[in-house]
Parts: sequence; structure tokens; C-alpha cells
Amino acid sequence: MRVRRRRFNDVPDPAGNGLLDRRVFLKGGAGALTAGAFMAFASSDAKAAPGEAPAGMKVPGAPLSLYGSPATFEREVTRTLIRSQPGTTGAGASRTPLEALEGIITPSGLHFERHHNGVPTIDPAQHQLLVHGMVARPLIFTVAALSRYPMESRIHFLECSGNSAVMFGTTPPAQTCGQTHGLVSCSEWTGVPLRLLLAEAGVDPRADWILAEGADAAAMSRSVPMAKAMDDALLALYQNGERLRPENGYPVRLFLPGYEGNMSVKWLRRIKVTDTPTMTKDETSKYTDLQADGKSLMFTYPMEVKSVITRPAPGLKMTGPGLYELSGIAWSGRGKIRRVEVSADGGQTWAETALSAPVLAYALTRFRIAWKWNGAPTVLKSRATDDAGRVQPTRDEFIAQNGANAIYHYHAIQAWRVESNGEVKNVYA
Amino acid sequence: MRVRRRRFNDVPDPAGNGLLDRRVFLKGGAGALTAGAFMAFASSDAKAAPGEAPAGMKVPGAPLSLYGSPATFEREVTRTLIRSQPGTTGAGASRTPLEALEGIITPSGLHFERHHNGVPTIDPAQHQLLVHGMVARPLIFTVAALSRYPMESRIHFLECSGNSAVMFGTTPPAQTCGQTHGLVSCSEWTGVPLRLLLAEAGVDPRADWILAEGADAAAMSRSVPMAKAMDDALLALYQNGERLRPENGYPVRLFLPGYEGNMSVKWLRRIKVTDTPTMTKDETSKYTDLQADGKSLMFTYPMEVKSVITRPAPGLKMTGPGLYELSGIAWSGRGKIRRVEVSADGGQTWAETALSAPVLAYALTRFRIAWKWNGAPTVLKSRATDDAGRVQPTRDEFIAQNGANAIYHYHAIQAWRVESNGEVKNVYA
Repeated sequence: MRVRRRRFNDVPDPAGNGLLDRRVFLKGGAGALTAGAFMAFASSDAKAAPGEAPAGMKVPGAPLSLYGSPATFEREVTRTLIRSQPGTTGAGASRTPLEALEGIITPSGLHFERHHNGVPTIDPAQHQLLVHGMVARPLIFTVAALSRYPMESRIHFLECSGNSAVMFGTTPPAQTCGQTHGLVSCSEWTGVPLRLLLAEAGVDPRADWILAEGADAAAMSRSVPMAKAMDDALLALYQNGERLRPENGYPVRLFLPGYEGNMSVKWLRRIKVTDTPTMTKDETSKYTDLQADGKSLMFTYPMEVKSVITRPAPGLKMTGPGLYELSGIAWSGRGKIRRVEVSADGGQTWAETALSAPVLAYALTRFRIAWKWNGAPTVLKSRATDDAGRVQPTRDEFIAQNGANAIYHYHAIQAWRVESNGEVKNVYA
Repeated sequence: MRVRRRRFNDVPDPAGNGLLDRRVFLKGGAGALTAGAFMAFASSDAKAAPGEAPAGMKVPGAPLSLYGSPATFEREVTRTLIRSQPGTTGAGASRTPLEALEGIITPSGLHFERHHNGVPTIDPAQHQLLVHGMVARPLIFTVAALSRYPMESRIHFLECSGNSAVMFGTTPPAQTCGQTHGLVSCSEWTGVPLRLLLAEAGVDPRADWILAEGADAAAMSRSVPMAKAMDDALLALYQNGERLRPENGYPVRLFLPGYEGNMSVKWLRRIKVTDTPTMTKDETSKYTDLQADGKSLMFTYPMEVKSVITRPAPGLKMTGPGLYELSGIAWSGRGKIRRVEVSADGGQTWAETALSAPVLAYALTRFRIAWKWNGAPTVLKSRATDDAGRVQPTRDEFIAQNGANAIYHYHAIQAWRVESNGEVKNVYA
């Protein structure tokens, strides 16, 4: 097994200020490195030997367990609770700590939450889903009945349409990456295609919409176009292999790939087939986009193409000049991610990053690129393009187009300022 | 939105005893169904209306939480503890409840465990990984140092080479699917390619092996060929997005895609570069395959092509004649799954199943097929083929080839007998 000799100096610089070619570390590619290339990270000790066994090797370890939990040393890696309604505990949001995570799967314990009146406790043996309205025969499904239907599994992101709403503000919030961008998570969802249940009930050909209603105390309800219901909508029963978590709609939720998270109604109790949208409180008083001219956009379903660098990011600190890997996530409610570029000079020059397989439609995509930081202050940015050719706008472009009155669908290029002391800050740049 | 009318009667039967074409439920395919096709599952009620709100809608729900847990109604979905050493709590195995799960991701709390002396408690701020032996410069890596290196994310199964060992026995064990086959799980693993660290240390060209040693009280250690170490071996730091769970090697484990699970040494403390295998206790007294002729096979690394139907399966019960979806998992340590066939007549005829995307190398692959059960007793089987063209053998073929003395690498076709009362049993058939 021979190692090809190559130093970073031989690697082409695709953009300014230290970004390296995305293939630099690939197996058999330009990335096979000379011994010592990263040396500053490890301690070199010519006499290093196994030495005495650490204390943990001298006593039997902890027992097997029925259901595991994270290490106690990771106890600070939690969701961030942000309550929107003073005096309540279950009306608000909790955010995924993106800067502490890697890959594309969000562990279910850290999936973001957004509830309008808390998490109901639902006995799956008692729960019923009613399909009624403009159908040949109204149907009532128990969870046991739903579990008999054919299922599909898909890895999809879910993003609250209010994610990054703080970025509409006039000053950049001094928050962690997860606090500004952590109303997005990604899971493997398994459930029954809604089209099978609608076919079973027999949809009136004049029906163009459905109403979906949750069994929470907010009776969360949204209208969904029939085309989406018949396309890729799922009634999700499983999340990351096991039954849904309570805060994600146990025992059954609607799941609409790529659409604003609020429409994937949790604790689903009712689907009414209709000819028009129902204009519920949740889609009129909320989840409409107030524009600069005072008009509001309704029914703006797909989440737009978006990305964010999660390492480094606010909440983490750089530890001196040298080689780093920039890592981040990109996603689009329009399909797959085609490309993510990164700039290490505030947007003057851009380098294409490596996308980690699998790159899936309506899923988070992990991107990575190597960066030799010279220790000088600078601004990092990422810019995603989806397979529909849509590109993230700058914040200025986004605000010029949409105004600053809305709180939904913010998806502009995110800038992180790296200070010479290694601190990473949210900036408008 | 029009629904194409089609009854099951129009769907070609690819095999005997009620198996339906794998495309039967695909969007726009043969699967668009007449209203009422599944009706036996749902209740039809012409007067059905939303009715009174359930109690859970009349009170505020539970609060947001820092780190979520499964619903209390799912408390019986746990790992099954099987202790191999009487009187110990941390030397044994716990198994994934495959029959309760769906999709391909195993939630980390239910990932199988196999420990030889329990789970050590390791402070990541204190842990060190030594790379030494036939290298230009021995190196010591802290977890913080490892975290600076470039990473890769990949979805891979991990299977204990002793999985399904009970199937070597002369009578089929009366156990659940998870108890016989649940020493396999699948996660998204993120970590540093081992080749980068070895290049950093400078491997002597005469070195052909490494020794990997864990920091548990068993000092679990295995030899790994240099070719694998330089190919796709990872030092995994993250599992399903978050840092490794303690029982999966926190803070760092070796991960060898497709190889027997025991070689992916957990709690990794040492990699020694060597010219020969070290012949440790764990690869000589254990993890060798005793053959019929009394000789043992050593270093049998890749796990073979394998599959199992998880629904229905022992631990679940059928609820009367009618349409079912058969669902299961397949995997191969040789690459991707190419095809999974299912038989509903004990192996006389076979139908090809639908594989759920993404189909990834060294990952679980979910397969599904519809089955109209006529209520008569029968035997279900699944048979996987990988992209190297390897096919699961029958149990008779496997035993004839390998004898019944071994306890590792069992991968024969699994048979479940369905009784007329809906019970599902493990059988040799």
C-alpha cells in the first residue's frame, strides 16, 4: 500500500484566501498527503508507547441497556428553547444545535419543535383519522388500520417557514448557528402515501384541496392542494426507524416534502376533501408573507434553496491559524442540491465544495471544503444552487425583493465573520 | 387530479400464493386503485363527521424539551438483553427489535450492543489515540485534534459476525425476529478517513497490517489489513448526526464498512502499524469459524449477503386474510443489494420486491412487496442478491458448506411460517 506524495502547495487554489480544491482529500486523488501535512493537530512523540492503561480499562464497564442515551459529556448538546408565548411552556419552538452536529440525519431527540399549544398525549389505540368531505365514502382509520397499508421510506428535511426569521432584523442577532438556523432538521420518514387513502375513499373529481387538522389543543389546520396530496404526501408513522416521537406528531403526521413545516400537520386527526382552500386561522393570521407594499402572499409552499456553514459557526471557536475543514448543510424545497460554493473573502471569490453522497431530493445535503486560515479576520459565506437552477440571494437582494416585514421564508446567503482571536460572529456582509 | 381506476385483479401475479407485482402501489403506475380496494382496514361511515374533540385537544399539551424521548406508549420497543456471561452485566449483547422498526436508519437508542467487558466511561477531554509501530513518526491525537481533520459521512450497517448464530442449532429457536437477527443495525457515521492519519504518521512501505485496540476493560483488539485501512476505514466521531453513543464507542471508534462488527473497534485508543497480523486473543480464541472438518477459518472479514422479512415476523401477528405489505431488510458486506425476492409458498416460486431508495453500499436496504394472504398456513422467505452476484443460500446449503460448528457469519435464507390463526414462527423449511 503506497501513499502518493503530495503537499497542499501542489493543490490548485480554486478561490482566494486559502480555500483548497474540493478533491484534495479524496482517496487516490490529489489528496494523498506527505507525512506531517497536518502535524500541528497531533502530538509527535518518537518514544510514544501504549503506556499504562487508563483507569476505565481496569474495571468492568457499564451494563447493556434497553434504550440508550447520549454520553453525559454531551449534556450541553440540546435543543435551544425559545418560547414565543410568555407564560406558556408548549407554545413556541426549540431549535436543533446545528453547530454540534455532522452528516445529514438529525437525531430525533434533537429534531426542532414548533408547537402552537404544546404536545398532546395520544394513545395510539384510541386515535382515529377521519377522511371525509368530497369523497365517495367517508372513512375512519385507526393506527392499526393505517399500519396495514403499503409504506414508503424517504429521507427528507423539515423546515419551519419561520426559520432564520431573526435575520429580517436590522442588526444581526448575536446567536449560535442553531439559534438562527436550527428550525430545520432531517429524518428518515416512513409512512403511507396519502394518495392510497384518498383513492380508497374515492375523491370527487371536482375536489382540488384538502384540509388537514391536528389533534392538538391548537387544532392546527392547513389547506393543501390536491396535486400535492396525490403526489408525494405521506402519512408518516415512523421517524428514523422507530415510531414518531411525541413532539413530531405521534402517532401519525402528514408529511409534505419540501413544503413549509407547518403544513406537515402533526397528530393528524382529520382530512377533509374540499373544492377550495379552507382559509383557516393558521393560514390567514399566520404563515402568510407580508410584503413591502403591505400586501400578503398566501400559500407560499416550497421552502427556498438555502445553506449555512455549521463548522465553524457562532457557538464554536477557531483555534489558531492553519488547516480547517468548513462543513455545512444545504437544502431546497424545489428538489435536489446541485452545487454549494463557499467564499473565504466575504464573497469576492467562490470555490465549489464537495457534496457528501447521497444527495437526495428534499433532504439536507452535507458540503465540505478545506480552508487554510492565515489567522487574519475575514468573512465566510456559503451559496447553494438547486437542480431547478435557483441560487441563494444575498441578504440585500432578498430584502429588496421581499421587504423586511415578513417573518417567513428567509433564505439569504449567511455570512460568518471570523475574528483574529478565533471567535465567529453572525454579520450582515 | 384524476385517479386511474385499477383493481388488483388487473395486476399480474409474479409468483404464487398471492404475491403482487412490486409496482402495484407506485404513483401513476399499475397501482392506482379503485375506491374501496383496501376497505377492510378502514371503517366506512357515511355519516362520519369530526365529532367532539378528544380530551387531548381541550388542555394545553406538554412543554418543549431539551432532548426528546420516545412516546410512553412505545415503552416495550427496546433492545433485547442477552447476557452471554452469567453474573456480568456488561459482557454480552443487546439486539435491535427489527420487527418494530421501518426504513433503514436504526435509532441510536436501539442500535445493537456487543461488549466483552461493559461500556467504559471516557472523558473526551482526557482520551488519547496513539498511532505508532512502523511509522515515520508516532503521533498522539486528542479528540479535539481528530475533530480538526477532514471528515466523511456514510450510511452503513454494522453486523456482529455472531448475528443469527442460534440458527446453527438443530431446532429453530422460538424467538422474535430481532432476537434471531437483531445484531445488525444501520446508522449514518461521520468521521475522519483513517488513511489521512496514517499518511500523517508516515507508514513504512513494508507494513501490511494494523492493530486496533479499544480502551475498554477487555482491551478488545483486532488486526486489520492495511489495504482496508487505506481504503474506506473511518475513525467515526458521530452517529446519526450527534456524537457517538457510549455503547457505540464514544468518543471515537474504528469503522470498517461491510466487515464483521467486532473489527470496528470501539473506544479506540491505539493503532499500531505492523508487518503481520498480531494474532490477538479476540481473533484467535474468538471470531474464527470452526468448520465441519475441525479446521478454523481466520480473518473472514466481509459479512455475507443476507436478508430477513421484518413484517410479518415472529413478534408480530397477522390479523386475518387479506392484503398485507411484506417489508424487510437486506444487506451485504460485499457492496450494494441488487435484488431481493420473496416467496409466499415456501420457496417454490419467487417474486421480485421493490427496493426503497437510496440503495447504498454496505447499508441496509428496505424491500417491500404486497401479498394477498388467503388465510391458509404457508411459509414466507426472502432471498437477497448483491451487486457482486452473490445469492443467499438455503440453510441446508449453508450447513452443508460450512458445517454446524461455527457461530459466525450465518446468512442463510430465513423462513417464517404463518399459521392460520395469524401467528408467525421461525422454522427450518
